[in-house]
Amino acid sequence: MKKIGFIGLGVMGGSIVKHFLKHGYEVFVYNRTQAKAAPYLAIGAKGCATPTEVANASEIIFTMVGFPQDVEEVYFGSHGIFQGDVAGKYLVDLTTSTPSLAQKIFVKGVERFAHVLDAPVSGGDLGAQKGTLTIMVGGIEEDYAALQKEFAVFGKTINYQGVAGSGQHTKMANQIMIAGTMTGMTELLVYANAAGLDVEKVLATVGGGSAANWSLSNYAPRILQGDYTPGFFVKHFVKDLKIALEEAKKLGLDLPATAQAEALYEKLENEGYGNDGTQSLIKLYWPEGIAPVSKK
Amino acid sequence: MKKIGFIGLGVMGGSIVKHFLKHGYEVFVYNRTQAKAAPYLAIGAKGCATPTEVANASEIIFTMVGFPQDVEEVYFGSHGIFQGDVAGKYLVDLTTSTPSLAQKIFVKGVERFAHVLDAPVSGGDLGAQKGTLTIMVGGIEEDYAALQKEFAVFGKTINYQGVAGSGQHTKMANQIMIAGTMTGMTELLVYANAAGLDVEKVLATVGGGSAANWSLSNYAPRILQGDYTPGFFVKHFVKDLKIALEEAKKLGLDLPATAQAEALYEKLENEGYGNDGTQSLIKLYWPEGIAPVSKK
Repeated sequence: MKKIGFIGLGVMGGSIVKHFLKHGYEVFVYNRTQAKAAPYLAIGAKGCATPTEVANASEIIFTMVGFPQDVEEVYFGSHGIFQGDVAGKYLVDLTTSTPSLAQKIFVKGVERFAHVLDAPVSGGDLGAQKGTLTIMVGGIEEDYAALQKEFAVFGKTINYQGVAGSGQHTKMANQIMIAGTMTGMTELLVYANAAGLDVEKVLATVGGGSAANWSLSNYAPRILQGDYTPGFFVKHFVKDLKIALEEAKKLGLDLPATAQAEALYEKLENEGYGNDGTQSLIKLYWPEGIAPVSKK
Repeated sequence: MKKIGFIGLGVMGGSIVKHFLKHGYEVFVYNRTQAKAAPYLAIGAKGCATPTEVANASEIIFTMVGFPQDVEEVYFGSHGIFQGDVAGKYLVDLTTSTPSLAQKIFVKGVERFAHVLDAPVSGGDLGAQKGTLTIMVGGIEEDYAALQKEFAVFGKTINYQGVAGSGQHTKMANQIMIAGTMTGMTELLVYANAAGLDVEKVLATVGGGSAANWSLSNYAPRILQGDYTPGFFVKHFVKDLKIALEEAKKLGLDLPATAQAEALYEKLENEGYGNDGTQSLIKLYWPEGIAPVSKK
């Protein structure tokens, strides 16, 4: 079994580390806020003081941090992965980040004889807990093939998408789609509630037909129960949509629906909901905080 | 078996009439363009010269026409349903129309001792052919209950939504949701294609996770095959979204994502795509007509 390195012990990363430990892997971990590493050290993970140390100790190094600037720091910083011995090793960024940064890491990896993959995931906290994440992999196909066993530890749908950056581009496509389902679901609920309909009946009717989608099935019931706990943070969705729009701009594209969604979510974040779940978008439409509630 | 009246023999209405005939009902039909009635007369439907005649000859009168002004004409026109004998009969509008018009028909029906239901459908041409439509019913619940047998002839999910107009409001909620899935799907494809990804691989990856939705599963493959034939007309979707936004305005609501979708679809219609399927939205993003094509 290869030695695993894992940098970033947030909600997602933490669950993945647990899976590796459960499968009997030796796991070297680092987290910027050191206290967050404690629960994983308690169940067998080995603590490192810097990303460089993780790189030196491990053979496959996964990173899963918050923002592109964090990814940059973890790889290229003065205590970063590339300060360590990476020759012949696998560097896999699971963070949703920019395709251009994925390419920059890949190029640096080539120089240093490392195998670099960009492999953002979808499936949220629940998918991470269950080990059923979707993993979208960019890089060299042989490198992707070489890590099948390790990806299977925490993923279910594990697809090769193309050259370096393609994992990130695929994730952006995914987020563009979700921008549509989240705004549509939110405005559906707002409308149905204001029109005096029984929202539960509406969901029972429209949820099974041509309006059917994952957000409607999974988030609308949470909203009706007043549950805004994050499956996915507003602040991270804003980050993702910003990256998507910047990339689109570079490609010469205008994506007005995605831009509208980003504007709404950015407004939501500015109003203080960054650490709530993405389903809290509905709060923008009821500034006084009255959201539809279940009539049952 | 009650005598059925059917006004409006378009793609949807025509299929429903066939179901009634197949089930052994006597069906009296009217269509504004008379030539379109011929195929149904040939298989046993009885032709009427006006909606008034249909109302006089039938016990349950269904209407399924294009726009609210057509509904208005069919019910209140000089040869309309309310010129006929409607006492004790059922008047059921299957057209997607305005909640306020549904209420107006209902009130007139009360005056004339008729049972009035608004019952727009979803499920498109295919659902009509298969007799598996979703039917969203507004009006008096007893009247809804009384027509279960007849609704089951062409519908599968048949739900009572509330007082008169609630069927139409529910359909609006449905269309607001679809505005999100269609714009999201379109921008996903545009982005993925421009980013140089293999679009089929992207769909295989994102289609099963939290981005999953009916539009992505059903329309994206058609777009990749260059198939823009209408399951649902652009011009009708524009009509629906306009109604939704007008109703939202009456309710004091601002629905920016739906408004953005409406603006895109209205632009598409103005560019001459009104009689194409709603999946042709992608043509707006490639003015030169180059849409993603399957690489297989």
